[in-house]
Amino acid sequence: MNDTLNTLLNHVSVREYLDRKVDDETLNLILKAACSGSTMGNMQLFSIIVTQDEAMKQKLAPFHFNQPMATKAPLILTFCADFRRFNRYCEFRDAETEAYSNLQSYQWAVTDALIAAQNACVAAESLGLGFCWLGTITYNVDKFIEVLNLPKHVIPVACIPIGYPVAKPALTQKLPMEALIHRETYQDYDKARIDALYADKENSSETKGILAENPDCENLAQVFTKHRYTKADNEHFAEVLLEALKKQGFLR
Amino acid sequence: MNDTLNTLLNHVSVREYLDRKVDDETLNLILKAACSGSTMGNMQLFSIIVTQDEAMKQKLAPFHFNQPMATKAPLILTFCADFRRFNRYCEFRDAETEAYSNLQSYQWAVTDALIAAQNACVAAESLGLGFCWLGTITYNVDKFIEVLNLPKHVIPVACIPIGYPVAKPALTQKLPMEALIHRETYQDYDKARIDALYADKENSSETKGILAENPDCENLAQVFTKHRYTKADNEHFAEVLLEALKKQGFLR
Repeated sequence: MNDTLNTLLNHVSVREYLDRKVDDETLNLILKAACSGSTMGNMQLFSIIVTQDEAMKQKLAPFHFNQPMATKAPLILTFCADFRRFNRYCEFRDAETEAYSNLQSYQWAVTDALIAAQNACVAAESLGLGFCWLGTITYNVDKFIEVLNLPKHVIPVACIPIGYPVAKPALTQKLPMEALIHRETYQDYDKARIDALYADKENSSETKGILAENPDCENLAQVFTKHRYTKADNEHFAEVLLEALKKQGFLR
Repeated sequence: MNDTLNTLLNHVSVREYLDRKVDDETLNLILKAACSGSTMGNMQLFSIIVTQDEAMKQKLAPFHFNQPMATKAPLILTFCADFRRFNRYCEFRDAETEAYSNLQSYQWAVTDALIAAQNACVAAESLGLGFCWLGTITYNVDKFIEVLNLPKHVIPVACIPIGYPVAKPALTQKLPMEALIHRETYQDYDKARIDALYADKENSSETKGILAENPDCENLAQVFTKHRYTKADNEHFAEVLLEALKKQGFLR
């Protein structure tokens, strides 16, 4: 087991941060790691917005539903799928400027941005920092586009608050690894297999605690569909995302 | 500089592999790392298809345009955005089964799958293995869905051939880091800034070599838009992706 694997296998999300700044040298290492990953055709189809200013955090906070991670972290990195820079390069070199105004190009840029984001996370964790991913970035994508002043062909896809952990939480309980792995072709899930794969999770004290807080739910699945991520909410935010894809020029 | 940062900052894509298998213990560490990353609401919205069988590699190869990485790597990992397992869990627990049939849910699953993929890459590189990302996975997504037998709510988003490197290539030339970083809000690119940011790349011997092979192009931008990733190809593959999103149940 090398140090890198040790970092990767011991990942935990951290949601409470000490009141301690991330210094420039540390930030620089995290950004360098983010910019060192694979990228489609070496086009580097992403941008990173660094938020350290308190006033900016306050402006962004409502669209992160005022989660404390978004207001209390000393540093927030927002990773954007970005074809703007490359398209501007094409424009200033008399090359076709509408080659990348489509969903395929968006998918490439999302990939580049998420590779960069995960590299930043691994780097941060190796340096003793903690972070968590904010799903809200893809919910209120229209608002983030406005506040961060993102032009056409730029869409935020990941938002990572980073800081020194108040405490190191325990590892999260996951499904057994075989739930996620398929050999050669996809092996679909029948009821017996789902029951077996979810058994430990359903019987955990964590799940029992969640169910105690949600007496209208018989099981964890219902907590998700009735409360955490409902059909109505998801369909609403899907519309917002679709509109943003159109507005930012990735869907005609 | 710790070992993890050393792995991240020295990443190179490797396209030629020794004729040497990846043993089960090593594969297992890579898969464990892939499954240890952040995931939306701990839903683990991804699956990994492990390809080691020669007959499967041959079946997949044409859709990777027979690139040697896809035929000669001892191991190929295909990462799928996967809401199927969670939806089946909901189905078998009398929870709403159509909450995650939308583009927002696809975006979450893409994120989970790409976090897993990048973790696998970092783990592999830390173990002395090499890899590269195959963009073809999102081009011919319909064909991969068929050959890998992917059900509704599963879409492949990353494909990574892995093997022991024949040689360790030099680091790729990237844009200067400030090209990718924005402080607080997005700073758009005018011609002077694009000229400055792309200057080293345009003047490199690598670019000069590419231009010598493409005498109909005046610059690198034109090589991309005229030959590598053309408007017509991208728009075609965007249609294929859009159709797959509909067929797999993420867009009504």
